[in-house]
Amino acid sequence: MNLRVRKLYEALFALEDLRDIFRQALPGGLDESEEEQLSNGIARVETIIKDLKEGRGSPIKYAEDKIELRTREEEFININPIQPGGRLTAEARKTLIAYGDGYSVCDMCLEGRLDKIRKPAVDEFHAELADFVGMDEVRVVPGARRGFQAVTSSLLEKGDVVIVSDLGHYTEYLAVETAGGVIKEVPSGPKNIITGDAVADRIESVKKETGKLPKLIIIEHFDYSFGNEHDVYGVGKVAKEYDIPFLYNGAYSVGMVPVNGKNIGADFVVGSGHKGMASVAPSGILATTDEWTPKVFRSSQIVGDVTGRRFENKEPAMLGCTLMGGTLLSMMASFPHVKERVKRWDAEVKKSNYFINEFLRIAGNKISSEYPRKHTLSKVDTRDSFDRIAKTHKRRGYFLSDELKRKGIVGEFAGSTRVWKLNTYGLSWDRIKYLSETFIEIAEKYALSVKRN
Amino acid sequence: MNLRVRKLYEALFALEDLRDIFRQALPGGLDESEEEQLSNGIARVETIIKDLKEGRGSPIKYAEDKIELRTREEEFININPIQPGGRLTAEARKTLIAYGDGYSVCDMCLEGRLDKIRKPAVDEFHAELADFVGMDEVRVVPGARRGFQAVTSSLLEKGDVVIVSDLGHYTEYLAVETAGGVIKEVPSGPKNIITGDAVADRIESVKKETGKLPKLIIIEHFDYSFGNEHDVYGVGKVAKEYDIPFLYNGAYSVGMVPVNGKNIGADFVVGSGHKGMASVAPSGILATTDEWTPKVFRSSQIVGDVTGRRFENKEPAMLGCTLMGGTLLSMMASFPHVKERVKRWDAEVKKSNYFINEFLRIAGNKISSEYPRKHTLSKVDTRDSFDRIAKTHKRRGYFLSDELKRKGIVGEFAGSTRVWKLNTYGLSWDRIKYLSETFIEIAEKYALSVKRN
Repeated sequence: MNLRVRKLYEALFALEDLRDIFRQALPGGLDESEEEQLSNGIARVETIIKDLKEGRGSPIKYAEDKIELRTREEEFININPIQPGGRLTAEARKTLIAYGDGYSVCDMCLEGRLDKIRKPAVDEFHAELADFVGMDEVRVVPGARRGFQAVTSSLLEKGDVVIVSDLGHYTEYLAVETAGGVIKEVPSGPKNIITGDAVADRIESVKKETGKLPKLIIIEHFDYSFGNEHDVYGVGKVAKEYDIPFLYNGAYSVGMVPVNGKNIGADFVVGSGHKGMASVAPSGILATTDEWTPKVFRSSQIVGDVTGRRFENKEPAMLGCTLMGGTLLSMMASFPHVKERVKRWDAEVKKSNYFINEFLRIAGNKISSEYPRKHTLSKVDTRDSFDRIAKTHKRRGYFLSDELKRKGIVGEFAGSTRVWKLNTYGLSWDRIKYLSETFIEIAEKYALSVKRN
Repeated sequence: MNLRVRKLYEALFALEDLRDIFRQALPGGLDESEEEQLSNGIARVETIIKDLKEGRGSPIKYAEDKIELRTREEEFININPIQPGGRLTAEARKTLIAYGDGYSVCDMCLEGRLDKIRKPAVDEFHAELADFVGMDEVRVVPGARRGFQAVTSSLLEKGDVVIVSDLGHYTEYLAVETAGGVIKEVPSGPKNIITGDAVADRIESVKKETGKLPKLIIIEHFDYSFGNEHDVYGVGKVAKEYDIPFLYNGAYSVGMVPVNGKNIGADFVVGSGHKGMASVAPSGILATTDEWTPKVFRSSQIVGDVTGRRFENKEPAMLGCTLMGGTLLSMMASFPHVKERVKRWDAEVKKSNYFINEFLRIAGNKISSEYPRKHTLSKVDTRDSFDRIAKTHKRRGYFLSDELKRKGIVGEFAGSTRVWKLNTYGLSWDRIKYLSETFIEIAEKYALSVKRN
């Protein structure tokens, strides 16, 4: 436990209590009793800041009631496979403090359309966002999965075939299931990589089987399992040849990797806010071309039979407005940072490879992902190294987590020492080196041999 | 602009900058340059706190970059019709500070199911939440609309009829539209109130027209337009008689009004986090009975044709996990407060009526909603009072907003002086009285006559 981190939280919370005084007060100013509350509260903040400065006092453990503080980003290095791209920027955290309240983005909504709000500049954000992923139109959605659903529900009739990767994320399957579609998987083969040819083969086999072409192709740029890069450019080309719409799943790329949907040949680009754009969950984006805009972002056509009410200003595949508060504002606040960080993707891959190279110095350690790495998410195999230790260690498979935690590293799945995933995204070189050294130290402690550099 | 409020925000933001130092540092501790950064940062916080205490310095205007601070809950009384139930509690704001990061709730996810996470106690929250609305099972969803969609997509075939109120929210219409259903509206009649009899009549007319019974009834307890109370108990009874599932739309009740779905005779209870449960958007709940659980919370049945992959642990109508971070944690943190505040609903209605009574003292002011009020959301008609002034005022319809803002009141739709909505939910008696007096003062300033008390 890091006392100073805990004091920081305590100070933040004490300030939130002060904020509540103003939330209850009359606009004219505080009354005597409120002034007293405020000055007591300020005194409390001063004491906490003094404790923080001097590194003393007792550390708080709870955010509220039974909800423990979450300090893994401040007190640890977090190598969780799905979390690092969604870690908030300081900009997002500040904006979230100001815009946490429910419908906070709707103060100046004039047209009943989230994407047209001008203050805060949601409209501008949408325009920039479409450009950012190289597409014509974009909407924000409550998670990438809701982007898949908007597309499947707009394009599929019951029984229609959708091509997905055999490494596809479960949410793609579910989005097809809810639309009544049928899944046909493309094998990623022994290399665990989807190629354009494999997709073409699968299209042909579907055509032969059913007499019809698939209605949609969904392929991820990087899969959730290995973090391998799949040939989305090749897939885009094949999709164009067969004239089948292609949904590019960028849950592990948009916001981290430079993505240009049109260059890829995608008809739809889906990204995740909480997985890749430093945003509060659930958030994400669905972008498309002018060609598909009238289909997925179509206007509502339903009419009230008695009243004649219509909602042509609303988009049914979005169910109207999507992210009306803190989720959207966190995306917007992180966006300038996100636009910059994708330009540093090569450096992220370099750090990933540095770590994996060091990790592979430990005898028995293997990499299940493609190698060299093209992503920061990697699947490693430690059955012939750490898991051998686990077999006789009194803490069994937990020994590795224990050792890592002792050194301030968390995020691997406790008890998993066999085949598991980690993600180095966003770690500084200092942290990458520390992480690498820690694994080697643990290996040495347990007498696993380590290759020289 | 309230300098002290702005200083509070400035201090919160300065602390977030300090937090970032730890987010970059090695777990062992800060190095020399980081220590220096920290002490400079602490000095900055101390200066801000000093300014706050002494009420001096210059007020900040932006949360970040181009995003303006949002201070309407601290610097004003906010009478916006849709916002007050979603205003965060201090508990939610604190928890959000700790759990803003993307997938923050997934640190200890052992089963791949959001509702089964035990730390933080998401599982316990779900159990209590079902109980809170008097139903058997519940899931959190990204907004009430996603609850409607889960039900319509699970229950409807193309062409199936759904009964809704002619005052139904547009998201109900859209949820029916996306499922390929057909809307049949129940007239609320001259009183703008839906009765059980009116629903029964509509069921009969649908039966006569189509030879079939409707597949679903969706009726709100309080509508978004008038905030009138509709006879949901009567509707529940009729629904049971015809054996048609009834979705109780509690967007304007759950989290503010005591709700027991089974007593009402509801098969589904939908609530909104950002509209009624003091939570970050988009959030909401869908609750149901044991009878309907296997239908709407069914397991995924889709199978990968090559791999044989299955996702039986996942619920397709939810698309798997729903609110994986700050949204859910804000609901959880506000929940103890929300459970208490519904017990004080009568007092909220009393304050609503006090305000409306005072408001109606102004000659020409009318109430479009049912009266006396049974809700805090009200539609008022000022065409014969404030709008008469607007006709000759140089600021036209904006004069009322100007006057209100000058007195620290915001949230009415700028320029709307004709028929408009406001909501007094959560305002203290002091604020209610201040609000009432302000309207009367404005009326007197413009020589509108005011009835004596």
